[in-house]
Amino acid sequence: MQFHHHGYVSGDPRVLPAEGVGVDRPTELPDEVDVLIVGSGPAGMIAAAQLARFPGVTTRIIERRPGRLAIGQADGIQARSVETFQAFGFAGRITAEAYQISEMCFWKPDVEHPENIVRTARPLDDPAGVSEFPHLIVNQARVLDYFAEYAANAPARITPDYGLEFLGLEVAEVTGAGEALPEFPVTVTLRHTTDSPDPAGPREGSERTVRAKYVIGADGARSGVRESIGRKLTGASANHAWGVMDVLAVTDFPDIRLKCAIQSHTGGSILLIPREGGHLFRMYVDLGEVPEGGSAAVRATTIEQIIAKANEILTPYTLDVKDVAWHSVYEVGHRLTDKFDDVAHEHVGTRTPRVFITGDACHTHSAKAGQGMNVSMQDGWNIAWKLGHVLEGRASEALLDTYSAERQVIAQNLIDFDREWSTLMAAKPEDLKDPTELEDFYVKTAEFPAGFMTHYAPSLITGSADHQSLATGFPVGKRFRSAPVQRVADGTPQHLGHHATADGRWRIYVFADAAGGGSTGDTAAVDALGAWLTESPDSPVVAFTPADADLDSRFDVKVIYRRPHTEVDLATVPPVFLPRSGPFGLIDYEKVHALRSDAGVAGGDGLSEPGVDIFAERGIDPAGAIVVVRPDHYVAQVLPLDGTAELAAFFARLMLPQREAVAAY
Amino acid sequence: MQFHHHGYVSGDPRVLPAEGVGVDRPTELPDEVDVLIVGSGPAGMIAAAQLARFPGVTTRIIERRPGRLAIGQADGIQARSVETFQAFGFAGRITAEAYQISEMCFWKPDVEHPENIVRTARPLDDPAGVSEFPHLIVNQARVLDYFAEYAANAPARITPDYGLEFLGLEVAEVTGAGEALPEFPVTVTLRHTTDSPDPAGPREGSERTVRAKYVIGADGARSGVRESIGRKLTGASANHAWGVMDVLAVTDFPDIRLKCAIQSHTGGSILLIPREGGHLFRMYVDLGEVPEGGSAAVRATTIEQIIAKANEILTPYTLDVKDVAWHSVYEVGHRLTDKFDDVAHEHVGTRTPRVFITGDACHTHSAKAGQGMNVSMQDGWNIAWKLGHVLEGRASEALLDTYSAERQVIAQNLIDFDREWSTLMAAKPEDLKDPTELEDFYVKTAEFPAGFMTHYAPSLITGSADHQSLATGFPVGKRFRSAPVQRVADGTPQHLGHHATADGRWRIYVFADAAGGGSTGDTAAVDALGAWLTESPDSPVVAFTPADADLDSRFDVKVIYRRPHTEVDLATVPPVFLPRSGPFGLIDYEKVHALRSDAGVAGGDGLSEPGVDIFAERGIDPAGAIVVVRPDHYVAQVLPLDGTAELAAFFARLMLPQREAVAAY
Ligand SMILES: Cc1cc2nc3c(=O)[nH]c(=O)nc-3n(C[C@H](O)[C@H](O)[C@H](O)COP(=O)(O)OP(=O)(O)OC[C@H]3O[C@@H](n4cnc5c(N)ncnc54)[C@H](O)[C@@H]3O)c2cc1C
Ligand SMILES: Cc1cc2nc3c(=O)[nH]c(=O)nc-3n(C[C@H](O)[C@H](O)[C@H](O)COP(=O)(O)OP(=O)(O)OC[C@H]3O[C@@H](n4cnc5c(N)ncnc54)[C@H](O)[C@@H]3O)c2cc1C
Repeated sequence: MQFHHHGYVSGDPRVLPAEGVGVDRPTELPDEVDVLIVGSGPAGMIAAAQLARFPGVTTRIIERRPGRLAIGQADGIQARSVETFQAFGFAGRITAEAYQISEMCFWKPDVEHPENIVRTARPLDDPAGVSEFPHLIVNQARVLDYFAEYAANAPARITPDYGLEFLGLEVAEVTGAGEALPEFPVTVTLRHTTDSPDPAGPREGSERTVRAKYVIGADGARSGVRESIGRKLTGASANHAWGVMDVLAVTDFPDIRLKCAIQSHTGGSILLIPREGGHLFRMYVDLGEVPEGGSAAVRATTIEQIIAKANEILTPYTLDVKDVAWHSVYEVGHRLTDKFDDVAHEHVGTRTPRVFITGDACHTHSAKAGQGMNVSMQDGWNIAWKLGHVLEGRASEALLDTYSAERQVIAQNLIDFDREWSTLMAAKPEDLKDPTELEDFYVKTAEFPAGFMTHYAPSLITGSADHQSLATGFPVGKRFRSAPVQRVADGTPQHLGHHATADGRWRIYVFADAAGGGSTGDTAAVDALGAWLTESPDSPVVAFTPADADLDSRFDVKVIYRRPHTEVDLATVPPVFLPRSGPFGLIDYEKVHALRSDAGVAGGDGLSEPGVDIFAERGIDPAGAIVVVRPDHYVAQVLPLDGTAELAAFFARLMLPQREAVAAY
Repeated sequence: MQFHHHGYVSGDPRVLPAEGVGVDRPTELPDEVDVLIVGSGPAGMIAAAQLARFPGVTTRIIERRPGRLAIGQADGIQARSVETFQAFGFAGRITAEAYQISEMCFWKPDVEHPENIVRTARPLDDPAGVSEFPHLIVNQARVLDYFAEYAANAPARITPDYGLEFLGLEVAEVTGAGEALPEFPVTVTLRHTTDSPDPAGPREGSERTVRAKYVIGADGARSGVRESIGRKLTGASANHAWGVMDVLAVTDFPDIRLKCAIQSHTGGSILLIPREGGHLFRMYVDLGEVPEGGSAAVRATTIEQIIAKANEILTPYTLDVKDVAWHSVYEVGHRLTDKFDDVAHEHVGTRTPRVFITGDACHTHSAKAGQGMNVSMQDGWNIAWKLGHVLEGRASEALLDTYSAERQVIAQNLIDFDREWSTLMAAKPEDLKDPTELEDFYVKTAEFPAGFMTHYAPSLITGSADHQSLATGFPVGKRFRSAPVQRVADGTPQHLGHHATADGRWRIYVFADAAGGGSTGDTAAVDALGAWLTESPDSPVVAFTPADADLDSRFDVKVIYRRPHTEVDLATVPPVFLPRSGPFGLIDYEKVHALRSDAGVAGGDGLSEPGVDIFAERGIDPAGAIVVVRPDHYVAQVLPLDGTAELAAFFARLMLPQREAVAAY
C-alpha cells in the first residue's frame, strides 16, 4: 500500500483523499450526471467502485431498495473474483470471514442399499493451483458491503442513492445532418419508492428525471433498462427450480462442512454449500423443470417441504433444522441477450453506445456452477474502466464498443457450460454414460468455474498473439496471473500482480532479457526501452500522459530483473521505473523487482514460496518480454523488448494524445 | 472466524453482539468501576481490548489527550506483536499497510576513504523463521486505532474517555481486625482537561473522583499512577538523546528503503527505519549522552541541525528533505521499577494488589532495539486477562500476584539487552573488539528483538517442565508457536494457533499418540482423555465451566490427529472436541485437526506450506501430549495423554469451582 507521498496520512490509508467531484459531493442526486448506474447488485457496485477512482467523472448509483442488501442471493466467489477483490483492497478481509472450498464431495446411492447415500468421490477443488487465491463462499451482501466501502473511500466518494426506482429512459438521436447530440443524451425517469430513507423528507411516488451521458443497467434479471433499449433475454423457455435454504442445523451427515453434490436413488438431488462462520450452510434442493405457467405451483413450495425433501435425500442421515436464516424458491432459465448495449449490430462504429446492460440483466442461468455474482462483477468492471477512460478524455469512444463484444461471448460460454453442468447434476445415476461422468466433468473443467476461462479475442484493446512465445505463461486475452518476485528497494517478497490495484491505469511489465540477467551482465535492452519510454514522443507514456500530471499517472511501468535483488543497483535503473511523483517529487521505489530470493521471509500474504523463478513459471523467453496489461488485469499484448513501434501503435489506435491539450480536469 | 451460531449475522462479523455491561454502556464515566485504566497508549489500549471480552466487568479507560494519537512515538512491531494482533483480529490488515523488515544493512566508513560510508553487511532480519508473521514498522497511532476498534466492537463495547487526567489515588486499607475492605477500595481523583471533547459540555479543570476495584496505570514514563503507589524508576542517571525525524525526502542513498545502522568516521550514527506507505522514513540521529542538567540544551536541537547532521553522516550521499511529518528529541535512560504493583514484596500473599503499572510507567530504555511499544503491549495483555478472570469469578485473586512477578523479570532482561545493543551501536568502529561485533550481535540475538525470548518461570500459571520431552517444540513458559494443520471437517489448511483469539479462554491442545495415528490405528488414549474431560468431576472443563454455560465457554479444547484428514471419521471423535453451543446447540466443527495434507490449497494466510508435519515440527513424542496454553498464548504445561491427575491439579490450584454456585453474571 503506498501513501504519505502527498504528506503525512494519520488515519486509515485506505481512505483516499477526496478529489474532483468527490470534494463536496452533493447528497441529493443532481439533474445531470456523467454515468448513472441503475441497481446496486454485484455488477452495479463494482462499476461504482471502479468509477470512484475517476474523480473527473460524476457517477451516481441508484437502487430501489431502501438500503443495503441484508441476506440471501448468491454466495459463490471464484478465485478470479478474489483476485478482483485484491485489486479493490479487500481480498484478505473477505477471505478471513468466508468459507474456503478445498474439496468437493460426491454422494450417490449405495450400490447394495440404494436407499442410503454413500460418498463416492472427493476431488480437490483446485488441484492445479490455478490461482494463489482461494475459492470462497460468503454472502453476496458482504461482497456488496466491501465494494460500497471502497466506493465511499475512493476519491470520487460514491455512495448509493437508495430508494430510487428506474422507470424508463430515452436516448436522444441526431435526426438532421450537422445537428449535435445534446451533452447528456440519455433522459432517465425515476420514482422515489415508498420505503426510501429519503434525507429530503417523504417524496414517495414522486417522479423525476435525470439526464446522463451514459447509463449502466445493472438492475438484474427483470431489468427495466434492458427493456427500455428493446433488448430481450432469449433461450430455453423452461425454468429450473430449486428450493434454496440457508440454515443452522444439527446433523450426523459427516460432510456437512464440505461442498457436496448429493444424488439419491429416487432422483432427488441436493447441492450443499457450507457457508461462512462455521455453522450456516446452504442447500439447493432440486425441484425440477418448471413447465410454462407452472411457476405459481412451484413457488408455493414451503420451507417444511424443502426440509422434508432434504431429509429424504440424505437418508440414512438426518437433518434437524434449528433456524432458517433465508429461503427461497430460486427459479431460473438459461437466457441471454444478443447484445449488451443500445447500438444495433449494423450501427456499430457509426453510433456511440449510451446504455449498457450488465450482469443478470443480460444473462441468467442456474446457480449450480456458482457463477452469477462472479460474471456480473466482471461485466461491471469491464464497462466501468472504459467509461472512465472515455469520460476523462484518455481514450476514444470506440473503446465503448468493446464492452458488448467482449462480454457477450463470455456470457454465451457461461450458459453453455452451465447447461451441461446442470444437466449432469440433475441426471439420474443410471442415465449417465459413465458413473463418474459428473466428477470427471468437475475436475476437467475446473478452470471454468474458477473464472479463468475468459479469453478475449483480438480487438482494439487485445493485441495479437504473434509474440506469445516470449511469455507463454501470460496468454494474450487472459487474466494476468501473478507470480512471486522480490522487490529490490526493500528486499521483501511480493506477488507481482498484487501491486496492481483497480486504479484505472494500464500496466507495462518489462521482463529483462537473459543477457541482462547475469550478476554482472549488462541491461542494454531494458535500458534502451526505459529511455524510449520517457524520451520518445511516440512512447505511450509520453504521448498519453498530460504534461502536468505525474509520470506514472496513466501508465504503471514496472521492471523485473533476471537476477537476485541484491545484485540490482538502483542507481543504474532507468528513471521510468523509479518515477517521481506528487507535490514533493518523491521517488516511487515499488516498481523495480528481481528474482524471488531463496530465503523465506514470513509473509501472511501467500508469499511463503521461496525460490520461485517468475521467468521460469511464466515462460519468459531469454530475450525478455514486454507484457501490457489492461486496467481490469487482462493481458493485452506481449511484445519483444525492442518492440517499441508495436507498443506505440497499440496505444495510438486507442488513446488520445495529451501533450497538446491538457487533460479535461 | 466463527459466527452465525446464535442466528444469522448480516453485517460485519467482527462486530460481536453487545453483552453484559456492553448493552447500554453509559457515555459518562460512572462513579464506580471494576477496572480503571489510566492512559490509552499501547499498554492501556490492549488492556481495554482484552477486558472488552469480559462483559461481566465494568472497564473504563481514561486519557488526558482530547482524542486519538495522531502521529509520532514508536513504530517497531515485533513478530510477537503481530502474533498478538492476530489474536485481536487485525494482523492481516495492519501488515497490509505496514513496512515489512526483510534485511538490515550495516554501513561504516570506507577503509580507504573514511569520509565516505559503505555497506558492510546485509543480514536477513529473521534468518531462522522464528514466526510465520513478519517484523513490521508502522506508526503507533495505527496500532492504537486497531485496538480501539476491537475494544469498541467487542461485547463490553469499550471506548476511551478522552480529556480526563489522572491526578492521584488512594487505596483503602483494612486497619482493624475483622473489618471488611470496601468493594471499590481504590479512590481515584481526575480532572477534566481544557481541550476535552466533553459530551456534557465544558467542565475544564473540574475534578471528580471515581472508585475502582482495580487500577491499571498505563500512563507512560512520567506515570502519576506509579508515583501515587510510591514506586520509582531507578537506573543509570544519564539519558541518551536522539534527534528523531519522520520525513519525506529525495536521496541517492541506495538503501533508503532498508533498515540501516549507519556509522560515520566522525563517530556520528544514524538508525534508519523505513516506514509504511513506501515513501516516509524515520531517522534516529545520535545526539549522545545527556549529562545531568543538560536536557534543555539537547532539547534545543532544531530540525535543521538534525538534517544537517544526517547529511554529514551520509556522505557521499545526500538527503534533500521535502517534508517533515514529525520530529522530536527523544531522550531516555535505562530505568526500571522493582515491582509493578502496589503490594510490597513482604506482603505478597497477604494483600491483594489493587494498582498495577504497565509499559513505560515501569520501564524505559532506548528506542534502538524497537521494544517500547511491544513490551508495553505484553504487559497490558498479561494483567488484563488476569483481572478479567478474577473479576468474573473464574480464578482466585492469587492470580494477580503473577503479573508483577512475570513482567518485572522481562523488563529487566529487556533493559540489559537494550543497554548492550545501544552501547554497540554508539561505539566508534575502532572501539569494537571485532569489526563485525555489531552485526554478529544482531544476528545472534535475533529472537530477542522479535519478542520471543520471553520465558516465564514456573508459577501458579506456568507448570514444570517435567514432561517437556513430550513436546519439545512447545517450551513451557514460552509463547505457543503455531504450525500448519489440516482441519478435518472442511479439509482446509489452517495455522493451528491462528484459531486462538484473545477471547480470554484457556486452551487444551490434545496431540494424538502414534498408536492412534496410523490410518487404521485406534485412538484409545485420545478417546479416554476426551471422555474424562467431559465426564469426570475432576476435569477442569467440568469443574470450572458453569453448568448453564456452553461446554466450550471457559476452555477451548482441540485435538490434532496424527493422520491425514480424510482418515478421521468425525462420528468417532469424542464430543469434547465437537462441542455443542449457543441457543441452537449447534456443533462446533473447528476443533478437530489432522496432519497437513500434501496438496496445496491457496491460502492468503501464510498457509502455502503443504506437507509440514506438525508432530515433527514441534517435536511431539510418539506417546502424544497435552499442551495447555494460557489466554495470552503462553504454554503453561505439557503433559502426557494420561496425565489427567496433573491436569486437574494444575487448574485446581488456580481456578474457582463453578458447578455449585452459578457464575456471577
Ligand atoms: C432473490 C434472488 C435469489 C438468488 N439466489 C441465488 C442463489 O441462490 N445462488 C446464486 O448463485 N445466485 C442467486 N441469485 C442470482 C445472483 O444474485 C445474481 O446472479 C447476481 O446478483 C447478479 O448481479 P447483478 O448485479 O447483475 O443483479 P442483482 O444482484 O439482481 O442486482 C440488481 C439490483 O438492481 C435493483 N433494481 C432492480 N430493478 C430496479 C429498478 N427498476 N430501479 C432501481 N433498482 C432496481 C435491485 O434491487 C438489485 O439491487 C439470486 C438472485 C435473486 C434476485
Ligand atoms: C514523545 C514520545 C516519543 C517517543 N518516541 C519513540 C520512538 O521514537 N521510538 C520508540 O520506540 N519509542 C518511542 N517512544 C516510546 C514509546 O512510545 C513507548 O515505549 C510506548 O508508547 C509505551 O506505551 P505505554 O502505553 O506504556 O505508554 P504511552 O504510549 O506513553 O502512553 C501513555 C498514555 O497515558 C496518557 N497519560 C499520561 N499521563 C496521564 C494522566 N495523568 N492522566 C491521563 N492520561 C495520562 C498519555 O497521554 C498517553 O496517551 C516515545 C514516547 C513518547 C512519549
